[in-house]
Amino acid sequence: MHQPDPHKLSLNTATVRQQWTLAQIIEGCARHDIRGISPWRDQVAELGLLQTSRMIKQHGLTVTGYCRGGMFPGNDEAERRRHLQDNQRAVDEALELNAACLVLVVGGLPAGSKDLSGARNQVRDGLSALLDYSRPRGMNLAIEPLHPMYAADRACVNTLSQANDLCDELGDDGLGLAIDLYHTWWDPNFQQEITRAGSKRLLAFHICDWLNPTQDLLEDRGMMGDGVINIRAFRQSVEALGYIGFHEVEIFSRKNWWMRDPDEVLRVCKARHKEHG
Amino acid sequence: MHQPDPHKLSLNTATVRQQWTLAQIIEGCARHDIRGISPWRDQVAELGLLQTSRMIKQHGLTVTGYCRGGMFPGNDEAERRRHLQDNQRAVDEALELNAACLVLVVGGLPAGSKDLSGARNQVRDGLSALLDYSRPRGMNLAIEPLHPMYAADRACVNTLSQANDLCDELGDDGLGLAIDLYHTWWDPNFQQEITRAGSKRLLAFHICDWLNPTQDLLEDRGMMGDGVINIRAFRQSVEALGYIGFHEVEIFSRKNWWMRDPDEVLRVCKARHKEHG
Repeated sequence: MHQPDPHKLSLNTATVRQQWTLAQIIEGCARHDIRGISPWRDQVAELGLLQTSRMIKQHGLTVTGYCRGGMFPGNDEAERRRHLQDNQRAVDEALELNAACLVLVVGGLPAGSKDLSGARNQVRDGLSALLDYSRPRGMNLAIEPLHPMYAADRACVNTLSQANDLCDELGDDGLGLAIDLYHTWWDPNFQQEITRAGSKRLLAFHICDWLNPTQDLLEDRGMMGDGVINIRAFRQSVEALGYIGFHEVEIFSRKNWWMRDPDEVLRVCKARHKEHG
Repeated sequence: MHQPDPHKLSLNTATVRQQWTLAQIIEGCARHDIRGISPWRDQVAELGLLQTSRMIKQHGLTVTGYCRGGMFPGNDEAERRRHLQDNQRAVDEALELNAACLVLVVGGLPAGSKDLSGARNQVRDGLSALLDYSRPRGMNLAIEPLHPMYAADRACVNTLSQANDLCDELGDDGLGLAIDLYHTWWDPNFQQEITRAGSKRLLAFHICDWLNPTQDLLEDRGMMGDGVINIRAFRQSVEALGYIGFHEVEIFSRKNWWMRDPDEVLRVCKARHKEHG
């Protein structure tokens, strides 16, 4: 199919979080007939887990991912244990929300460290420990490779290949990938690695656009169609491999979309998803 | 050797170009006993090619690379031919300066394009055409993989693996890699790909640091030691493979190093090279 299924549009709540509370976002999705949602932990904590769960069910929304777990590395065993315990709570919350997966931003270098491969080993070990908790409970963990510009501070898993390697090593029962085009569109091995992943590992698919020029490392993502990513071609590639999940829009945009009327943002998301998704 | 050979420090002129003319930079390198220099084309044009060449010889400096050729992609054949002709002139200038190599920033997407793999094919074709010119004249071309955050606007060759693939495909006679740690420190295949490259292909080695946090995509590079890159370990890795060239410092830093007394910048470069290089 050339155009995307409009019912597969999902809204990552970060896209309008500056304007709306989580309750307003849930109601906004329902009002605009956006059927998927991916909320963030701090927003859920503010609204209350059970209240969030109730509202999402009441409006018939699918939780396409829960943002987020991860941040595994730490400078000592105690810090890493605290991270694990926090991740276990995130798994419990994701279960309560009936989320398709817990999205993992795996963490970067521990404070003061220059040991990137050591951090990567800590991610593997932390993920392995979390799987011992998530697997028996039936919650999928989705490793999200982040753009290499976040290797130091947010995630030292920066390519689809690394994420696939982790799935190979730890087993892909309840473990897979969250593919965000903002982070991976540049990867010369994109097609090769999603093929290697296959539909079993493709747990989430996030879209937005890469603006050229980009003004800010963190909060200058583009609306679909405003940048240089051939979103449709990538979406067709993952669907050709059997991905049947949602297309989750996640836009951090301090100077543009976060300043607009959120109803307008949702209308534009729907239109651009149809045109470019 | 644990510490770097201090005589292998080279200064990419971008590091103090906001404060000094090229003539002042050449004299500054000589005054500070920095024996390598890597000038940019616009500065050379301003000072004059022959005058630059004379001054560099007079002060006994080694030109560790000439910045820069590349920018191969274009929207039509005429644009690409103009780029090729400009690159041929850059080869001639590099020869006049007796540069170790012409550094190639290969270019990103042509204006309005979303076809990244097409741009990569144009890079391969443009590079192939330029090799027909550079090889008989004996000037090395050094492909510099740029950080993926520059894939759209500056270089669609973003990994050492891609650069090695180009060397495999086009032959590595007169063709190799410029390894800049700012662009490649995050690469999980760094060791594997420099091993694959081997000393024959290692034509240049650029250093600076990745600041955490980084404030700007282009002009917030760090002085060695101020960031998260284990520069010494990387330098030892390339030298263990047989690299015997210079360590070229290239720092774009609008709000810090470009605002300082350039004599101080050069003193700090030397000290930090010794401590962290």
